[in-house]
Amino acid sequence: MMHTDLTILVIDENAIRASIIEEGLREAGHEHVTVVHEVNGIARIIETLQPDVIIIDIESPNRDMMEHLFQLTRTVSRPIAMFVDRSDTASIEAAVDAGVSAYIVDGLKKERVKPILDMAVSRFNAFSRLQRELADAKTALEERKVIERAKGILMKMRGLSEEEAFALLRQTAMNEKKKLAEIAQSVVTAAGLLM
Amino acid sequence: MMHTDLTILVIDENAIRASIIEEGLREAGHEHVTVVHEVNGIARIIETLQPDVIIIDIESPNRDMMEHLFQLTRTVSRPIAMFVDRSDTASIEAAVDAGVSAYIVDGLKKERVKPILDMAVSRFNAFSRLQRELADAKTALEERKVIERAKGILMKMRGLSEEEAFALLRQTAMNEKKKLAEIAQSVVTAAGLLM
Repeated sequence: MMHTDLTILVIDENAIRASIIEEGLREAGHEHVTVVHEVNGIARIIETLQPDVIIIDIESPNRDMMEHLFQLTRTVSRPIAMFVDRSDTASIEAAVDAGVSAYIVDGLKKERVKPILDMAVSRFNAFSRLQRELADAKTALEERKVIERAKGILMKMRGLSEEEAFALLRQTAMNEKKKLAEIAQSVVTAAGLLM
Repeated sequence: MMHTDLTILVIDENAIRASIIEEGLREAGHEHVTVVHEVNGIARIIETLQPDVIIIDIESPNRDMMEHLFQLTRTVSRPIAMFVDRSDTASIEAAVDAGVSAYIVDGLKKERVKPILDMAVSRFNAFSRLQRELADAKTALEERKVIERAKGILMKMRGLSEEEAFALLRQTAMNEKKKLAEIAQSVVTAAGLLM
C-alpha cells in the first residue's frame, strides 16, 4: 500500500490545531483524511471508518482524558501518533505502554506531521512483527506440550511406542484435515473425560 | 535508577546545536553529560563511557554518514535519540530498523530534549522487554525439543518408558547440578557420536 493511500483519522478538539495537521497531511499528498473534533464516541467512529492510522492531538491533556484515550489506544491495534503540549515522564511511559507509536510533546508543526506519521507506521510495524513472532513462538511451545501429552496418553492407554503414538496422531490429523495440535488437544480432553 | 542519574553521551558536529541539547539536559537536572563533536571514533568512546542513553544530532545527514551511524546503533543496544533536520520515509524506516528509539525530524528545541530522552528510554525498554520474551520463548521451545529427542534416545537404547526416561534425565541433572536441557543435549550429542 502506498503511504498516501492511507485512511487517516484525526482527533482534535481544537479547530486551529486540527487545520495545521490537515494541512501537513494534504501537502504530503494524503487525501483520505477524516477530522473529528470530539473525543467522545470515537470508538464507534474507528469501528466504522477502519482507519490505517490515527492522529490524536490534545492541547492540554488532563489525567482523565489521557486515561480514557490510553484505554482506547490499547485496543485499536493501529499506528497512533499523539501530539500533546506538555507531558511528564510518567505519562510518556503510560503512552508507550498503551501502544502509542509516536508521542510528540510540544512539537506540532505542519512540516513535521508527515515524518511523524511515517515514524508511527514504521514503529507500529516493527513492534507488531515482534509481537507476532512472540505469539507464534508461544503457540509453538503450547502445541508441542499438548502433542507430548497426547502421545503419552496414547502410549499408556494403547500400549504404543512413541513413534507409533505420533504416527497415529499425524494420520488422524491428515484424515480429518485438522492440525496435529487440534487432534492432540482432543485426545487430552477426551482422556480427561474418560479416565 | 533515577532518570537524572543517567550517563548521557551527546554526539553533535555542530557546536551551537550541541549547546541547545546540553542546555535542555541541564535544565532537566541531568549532570552526567558528555559531548563529542566528532562522529569518527565514537564506537571506542561508547565502549569507554558506557552511556545509558545516546543522543545523536545531525544537521544535514548524508547517506554514508547515516549508514555508518545505523551500523553503530544496531550494535550498541541502548536507548538512542536521533535528531535530524530532514528525512524521507525510507530513512525513517531504516532508523526504526536500526534500533533508534526516538528519531526526530526537524524538532530540535531546548524544551523538547527532556521528553524525547524519556521517550527514547521508555520505548527502548518496551522493545527490549518484548525481545527478551521472544528469546525466552524460543529457548524454551528449543530446550523442549532437545529433551524430547533425548527421551526418545533413552527409551530406545535402554528400553525405558517415557516416564522412566524423563526421570533419569532429571535425576542426572540434579546430581550434576546442571539444567535438564544441558543433560539432554549431552545425550543427543553422545548418541550422535556413538551410534
